[in-house]
Parts: sequence; C-alpha cells; structure tokens
Amino acid sequence: MKATTIYAAHDVRLEDQPDPAIAKPSDAIVKVLAACVCGSDLWYYRGDNPIKDPFRIGHEFVGVVEDVGSDVRSLRRGDFVIAPFKYSDNTCAHCRVGIQSACSAGGFWGRPDRDGLMADGGQGEYVRVPLADGTLVTTRETPGPAMVPSLLALSDVMGTGWHAAIAARVQEGDTVVVVGDGAVGLSGVLAASRMGAERVVAMSRSQARQQVARSFGATDVIAERGEAGESAVLELTGGVGADAVLECVGTAQAMTTALAVARPGATVGYVGVPHGVDLPVRTMFSRNIGVAGGVAPVRQYLPALRDDVLSGAIKPGLVFDLDLRLDKVAEGYAAMDERRAIKTMLRP
Amino acid sequence: MKATTIYAAHDVRLEDQPDPAIAKPSDAIVKVLAACVCGSDLWYYRGDNPIKDPFRIGHEFVGVVEDVGSDVRSLRRGDFVIAPFKYSDNTCAHCRVGIQSACSAGGFWGRPDRDGLMADGGQGEYVRVPLADGTLVTTRETPGPAMVPSLLALSDVMGTGWHAAIAARVQEGDTVVVVGDGAVGLSGVLAASRMGAERVVAMSRSQARQQVARSFGATDVIAERGEAGESAVLELTGGVGADAVLECVGTAQAMTTALAVARPGATVGYVGVPHGVDLPVRTMFSRNIGVAGGVAPVRQYLPALRDDVLSGAIKPGLVFDLDLRLDKVAEGYAAMDERRAIKTMLRP
Repeated sequence: MKATTIYAAHDVRLEDQPDPAIAKPSDAIVKVLAACVCGSDLWYYRGDNPIKDPFRIGHEFVGVVEDVGSDVRSLRRGDFVIAPFKYSDNTCAHCRVGIQSACSAGGFWGRPDRDGLMADGGQGEYVRVPLADGTLVTTRETPGPAMVPSLLALSDVMGTGWHAAIAARVQEGDTVVVVGDGAVGLSGVLAASRMGAERVVAMSRSQARQQVARSFGATDVIAERGEAGESAVLELTGGVGADAVLECVGTAQAMTTALAVARPGATVGYVGVPHGVDLPVRTMFSRNIGVAGGVAPVRQYLPALRDDVLSGAIKPGLVFDLDLRLDKVAEGYAAMDERRAIKTMLRP
Repeated sequence: MKATTIYAAHDVRLEDQPDPAIAKPSDAIVKVLAACVCGSDLWYYRGDNPIKDPFRIGHEFVGVVEDVGSDVRSLRRGDFVIAPFKYSDNTCAHCRVGIQSACSAGGFWGRPDRDGLMADGGQGEYVRVPLADGTLVTTRETPGPAMVPSLLALSDVMGTGWHAAIAARVQEGDTVVVVGDGAVGLSGVLAASRMGAERVVAMSRSQARQQVARSFGATDVIAERGEAGESAVLELTGGVGADAVLECVGTAQAMTTALAVARPGATVGYVGVPHGVDLPVRTMFSRNIGVAGGVAPVRQYLPALRDDVLSGAIKPGLVFDLDLRLDKVAEGYAAMDERRAIKTMLRP
C-alpha cells in the first residue's frame, strides 16, 4: 500500500509500505476513504517539533472495515468507521470517565504500540487499528459522499473544538470568544454556537476563514490581534470580558489574548498544543480565570457529534477547502503551511 | 476605638484609632463582635509579602450594625451581620455573575477606597463598611454565642474552601483530595463533603487538624508529603487519581502535589494565594488537568452557607482553636505563625 512518512521539516513522502494485517485479536484493518492534514502535523512540518527518526504521519481518517480480529464484537466487514486521533480501549478507568485520550492502553497512530507493533499513520491506504472495538465509531450504513468531509472532521478538529468549548464551560446564552481561525478554532465556533452561546466572537484576519466562522454561527468577527484585539473584545462586552474563551492555537500570544479577554470567573478552554506558553498564575488568581483542556478525548464526543452530522445539525466539513488525491500529500502540507488552505483532505 | 495595625514582619499592634463614622450614604458602621486572623495575614506577618507602609489589618468579622447611611436599604441598626473579606456593590456586571471579588466598585478592608477614604480593618472594635447593602449579609435575628464562630468562618475560610470545591467542580460521588490542612483546607474538606463527595482525602500531618478534618467529613487522611504523599493518593485511587483536587496552600509544593494526584480530566481548584507557583502547562495539557480558582467570591456563597450554619448542617467554626481578647492580637498571630493554633478568633 501507499502511506505517508515525514522525514524532516518540509519533507513528507508517499511511499510503498507493507499492507497491514490483523496482528492481535482486538485489531481491525480499515481501508481509508479519506484522511487529512492536521495543524499539529504542521508543528513537525515547520520544524517546531524535532523529528528524531522519520515516522508515519496522519491521525485523522474515515474508512471501511476490511477485516476484524477474533475478539472484535462491535464492528463487521463493510462498516463505515470514523477513527479518533488516538486509539483507546474505551474500558479503562480513564475511558470510563470520558478521557479516552488518557487511556491506559491507548496510543498514537503511526507509532509503535506498547508491544512495539506499529499502528499505521492515517495518511495512507490502509490502517491497522488496535483496540478496534474501543476506538472506532461506525455509522453502520455507508454515508453519501457529501457527508464524508463532515464525518472526517470528527476525527479530530470538530471533537477538539468541542473539547475546548466543554473545557471552557460554555453555557447557553454565553458570550464566547474563540482565539484562532484554523480548523480547530472554526470548529470551536461551531461547538459554542451548537451549545447555545448567544454571541460567538471569532478572532480572524482572513476573509475566507471569517466566512466559514460566520457560517458556523459566529455573530461577531474581530480582525485585530494583540492588545488591539483585546480592546475590541472588551468594547464588545461592555468592558466585562467574555463568559468563556476558546484558545485554539497554542502560542504565547494566543494564550495571552485568551486570558485577557476572559471575564473574572471565566475559564479558558485550550486545545492548541502549548508552544512557549507561560501561564501567569498570579494574574489568573487575582482575576479568577481558570484554564482547562488538553489532548481532546474526541472518542467521548464522537457518537453524539456523528448523530449531529448525520441529522444535518452541524456541517463541520466546511473546514476543508482543499481536496487532493493522496499522492499530492506534499502539496496538501505546503498549502496549509502557507495558509493557502484551512485544511486539506486527502483521498487515497 | 482600638484597632490593629501591622508595622512589619512579626510586629502587629492594637492601638487607638479615630472612631469611624458614616462618610458616604451607602456606608454602615458595624460594631465588631468577633474577628479573626487569616492565613493570608501571615504572608505579611512572616515577611513573605513586603509591607511598604504600616496598614490596618484584618478582613474577617461579624458584628452588629450601629449606624447606616441614608442610602442603605437592606440593613438596620441592631442587625447581626457577616462581612465577606472584600466589600462589593453586588450590582455591577461582575457581581451579577457571582464574582463579587472582582466588583468594579469593591475593595479590601484596611485600605483606602477609590476616593481615598479608609475602610477600616476587621481586627478592631468598629468598622466603616462601604457599599453596605451589597457587602453585608445579615442573619437578622442575633444568633446565640455558640453560632458566632461558624458565622465568622463564613467571612473567609469557609467561603474560600467552598470556592475551591466549586472551582474544582466537585460532584456527588467524587473522590476529592484536599491539599492543605489550614483553616481553608479544612473548610475545603467540609465543602467537598457537603457537596456529596463520596471520598474526601485530607492531606495532613497534624493530629489536631486530622481530627477536625474527620469531623468535617474526611474519609481518609494522608500524612505523607511530596512524592510519598502523591503515591499514597494514587494507591488509594487504584492508580487513577482524584476526580477533583483542592489546593489550599499556595506554595509550589502544594500545587505540584495537587496536579500530580488529579486524574486526567480533573480540575485543581486553587485558593491559596500563589507564592512561587509555576504552572507546568505542557504536563497539564497532556494530562487534561485544569486549574481554576482565585480570590474567592465569598459574598456569592454567603447567604446559602449562612442558612447551612443556622440550620446546623455545617459547623465551620470548629476551625477556631484559639479564642482571645482583641488586646492579645499579637499572641493570636504568633500562635498561628508557629502552628500552635489552626485559627485565632479575636473578641473586642
């Protein structure tokens, strides 16, 4: 099969790899129908995260079950499935409270599992899925092609934006500010809106992204950044600040803005992997601003979000504005890196 | 009247001061029946917080209304009142969402208000209370002497422990760990227990404090600190960690322990003023541990906690183990500083 390996910054290659096969009774083999490139893949692509050894990349995919191990109960050949960006058994103590991203038996795609067996990366033709019963969520019936992007978005960005909103304790009627206009930030706008926020403020300078934000329910857009952006939010909220803030970038500037625009008593839900972020604990304390979030337990949110997609209540697939064949994977990365695309879908 | 001034580390003095009088129509004058010394007063007493100029100290008191300004509507002469540790108008945007500690018009006792007028400190015979309608909570009928310590505890420590539990999102059935066995930590034990936590783990080496913790509902006590204490919590929770953690000290070690014993997805509610605390954002992110809390909006919680005290549901006054006349204020500080007392009550 063909699958993607990242060798170094700005060097991703689609190459021949051995076809995966069932290695454990809890495995499934999934034929990938669509995968995508994540903002967090760009940390490697841009050289912000070091690459010690080349590794198989991609952690978002939907596909069809090709084969299942003898212990797999909930899936059968032919099922359409959505994979969350980490695999998990969905039965351990952490999974039971809904934090599947901390599963004791779980792990990341494209890395060796606890027994040293590779779980394939998602940007390829096939994936061996460990702990398939716990990991994969099926729609059972095969959805029409128009549904695929929105179901694929549930692999990561929509569940991650949802986690930001959950962590930020978004309530009905709230004024919510979303920092970050990447696919996760836009998904955060959609999540806050779906949760009943009355006012959703998207911070974005890009017209294309502003447009997606508005279609996701943003009521206000602020193009300014830094102190000018903070002032604009305060002006919009009568000097009080937002009831909840979603930080969907992971940089120091984004966190500074997020904390500054939160009203006392608010929580900043953060899902951008922190890079150079230093939390100002004394200021947070004196202003009663909490921070919560982390590696999103997408698996927790998947069944409900799947139903929301299937019913047409949400269309998170609008974050995809570039649709490429898998052999154009390098261009898919480059387009996102250069901000020519919000998010790239890859079809094997 | 007599009132307390702190001059320098280890130097508090009861001195003659002018009797306060109504200065603004929204003021009340309260005759103090009981006041106390706070753990946060000790930051000054121990020299951990610098003292630029001597200032009137004490921010916890109960008393009887002696006089009210012409705008005061909810109080009358003779009312028994509880003062939260900050005054607030209870009408601004921050107060309306329950974060009275961030009141736009509010301030601290013993400091000049926004017009430069002194709001007296609480460790004295009388206090001019700004924004009396918004600040003071009355029991209306004068409570019996046995109730006074528990009502006094609502001025700060009980409301602060409650805030820690609210910030940590304590839920019915939770396993909750409380780091800190001062009066606030003990109040946190009581709060978690009152909120329906199934298991409340108090971390304390002191037998006297362990005893109060048990009477407040602690089901387990861990005497170890640092890594040994963390291991003990993990053992107690089957390796998973606590559903909610209350950090009631404010030191780096206390926060490190609190974060380490929280299960993924949990929130550390922190109410100890951070001193030398550095939040490890990458670890928090990878483990999905939130932190929330700050200067407690005691005023929000006061009416319900007052009713809980009056009904006998809670007895937070058990934190007081030293009851002195106001002229022994210096000894009251020394006893707490040397950990001979958990908390000192002072009666004018």
